[in-house]
Amino acid sequence: MKFTTIKAEDKKLILLDQTVLPETLTYNEYTDYRGVIKAIKRLEVRGAPAIGIAAAYALALASEAQVDITLEQLSKVMVDVAQEIKNARPTAVNLAWAVDRVMEKVQKYDGDSLDEYRRIFWAEGDAILKEDEKMCDAMGRHGAQLLPDEATVLTHCNAGALATGGIGTALAVFYKAKEMGKNIKVFADETRPLLQGARLTCWELMQEDIDVTLLTDNMAGYAMAQGKIDAVITGADRITKNGDVANKIGTYAVAVLAKEHGIPFYVAAPESTFDKFLESGEQIIVEQRSPGEVTEGFGKPTAPAGVKVYSPAFDITPHKLVTAYITDTGIRPGGRK
Amino acid sequence: MKFTTIKAEDKKLILLDQTVLPETLTYNEYTDYRGVIKAIKRLEVRGAPAIGIAAAYALALASEAQVDITLEQLSKVMVDVAQEIKNARPTAVNLAWAVDRVMEKVQKYDGDSLDEYRRIFWAEGDAILKEDEKMCDAMGRHGAQLLPDEATVLTHCNAGALATGGIGTALAVFYKAKEMGKNIKVFADETRPLLQGARLTCWELMQEDIDVTLLTDNMAGYAMAQGKIDAVITGADRITKNGDVANKIGTYAVAVLAKEHGIPFYVAAPESTFDKFLESGEQIIVEQRSPGEVTEGFGKPTAPAGVKVYSPAFDITPHKLVTAYITDTGIRPGGRK
Repeated sequence: MKFTTIKAEDKKLILLDQTVLPETLTYNEYTDYRGVIKAIKRLEVRGAPAIGIAAAYALALASEAQVDITLEQLSKVMVDVAQEIKNARPTAVNLAWAVDRVMEKVQKYDGDSLDEYRRIFWAEGDAILKEDEKMCDAMGRHGAQLLPDEATVLTHCNAGALATGGIGTALAVFYKAKEMGKNIKVFADETRPLLQGARLTCWELMQEDIDVTLLTDNMAGYAMAQGKIDAVITGADRITKNGDVANKIGTYAVAVLAKEHGIPFYVAAPESTFDKFLESGEQIIVEQRSPGEVTEGFGKPTAPAGVKVYSPAFDITPHKLVTAYITDTGIRPGGRK
Repeated sequence: MKFTTIKAEDKKLILLDQTVLPETLTYNEYTDYRGVIKAIKRLEVRGAPAIGIAAAYALALASEAQVDITLEQLSKVMVDVAQEIKNARPTAVNLAWAVDRVMEKVQKYDGDSLDEYRRIFWAEGDAILKEDEKMCDAMGRHGAQLLPDEATVLTHCNAGALATGGIGTALAVFYKAKEMGKNIKVFADETRPLLQGARLTCWELMQEDIDVTLLTDNMAGYAMAQGKIDAVITGADRITKNGDVANKIGTYAVAVLAKEHGIPFYVAAPESTFDKFLESGEQIIVEQRSPGEVTEGFGKPTAPAGVKVYSPAFDITPHKLVTAYITDTGIRPGGRK
């Protein structure tokens, strides 16, 4: 990739600031874990895998913060810091997962070196990042095999390198297909209200010289009717045991339209996105977002003051609308016949 | 209605400026027909019926402009003016229809009074406005009978009083249902790229104390899946002989989603919207809009510079997705079984 969403260097965490894309490419450096918490809260870093990685490194930064401290004192401090980081965005599953993973690792340390102890945080952050990179590559390889040599594929929101530590989930498929010499064109839904498709997916694909065309969400159905779309690939926030998919609002409508037009609908997500406890999508609580994202999402009011707003952050796509799941371990068939 | 989209008074044309809604309620007065042409071009007045009425009055204004002129000279001038007005927006069918109708009427005048000649323009403008009012009322009455006593109805774009000389086409149904004592709630798609749903439909319905909830276009499918929508009513720009409907982009996707959820999909339009020449929707040429409406629709860039954009202004909904047409002469069955 020509850009790096997240990396650690010289005991600093460097984040690509996604709030100012596509107008400005800014990398922010963090040495204070509290700055990383703020960055997560204000969506400077977003996408469940990327947030998890940032959280792991935030722990590493916190471990370096205090110099005059005993190992025993620091390990106590870190328990509180871990909770503070987990609270940054309580709904992001990977955030808690990554923090717990790092804390479990360091709590097994039975030496007496502060330096060694601190190195475990950095090493575990690096490990999570590396694993995420590999999972993205694997999803890309598996998914690319599903696509013909020439295809135009619709995607929704941003499930790309900007959302992960690697080359993305859904967008990884495009990058790998290109490497294989396939001629893939992408249609990107702008993805209201926060325009992750317009701002992030278009930017990311243009950086990597992938042919991308932007459209508003309400144009996708007509594009399909016009025969312009050969397949749909989206990411997922959570997949329940029966295969129902929680993902960015608008995914469900795209899945219905894909079925209506006989176009395959693929969901790309690592195995960790498959929820081992929830049976079906009905059990997922869908968060309602702030009305202002809809009524003033572009920096000025675009609707009458005080209008009522319906704004679910994501929706549930039943497994029977999914052709197949593209995971890091391979392709799983979906429920669409 | 608590506002007037278009009216003529004391030889002036008064237009509600729709470009600054919902932030500002401004009425602009015109005495020069060229000002009206500009108003049509910049969408200060919009909606096919409203544009037709504005065009008729623009002719009346032009007929008053020159004082030292003979009847013969004026009638020649008016032929050129008529063409100039028709060119304001060449794709709006009602514009040319209204201009032709007024010109046919005045060309039959065989008296020798300039004042009488001029009065014909005003009278014909008034007649078109009055007829439109009556057609809107009739559509509203017929449509309201289709709705149960309590219902939440989704609409797309603005097919309301702001688009006509009366109480609208689709929105007329809500106003008449309310008069009948029915408890109707409305969900309004924001309607990207130009947000006529957010800016105009929400404003108009709030003015008239109709319960309206705004949602982004990509939320409509999930709202249906959640059981929140009982019916869909949209307007139409043109309906071909087989019943295919050209309307604002996004209408087609809503129609597919309505079918998927077993929700009736109604199209409200006066008989004049039914095209007597085109056989089917495939014969309609769909205009592509400027990329800037998608990438900078809110006064600041929301996508990378130079991104390719797919932006059809409207789409075609096949008759087999339409439950029924609500017209001024009654209800026509659609092709959806």
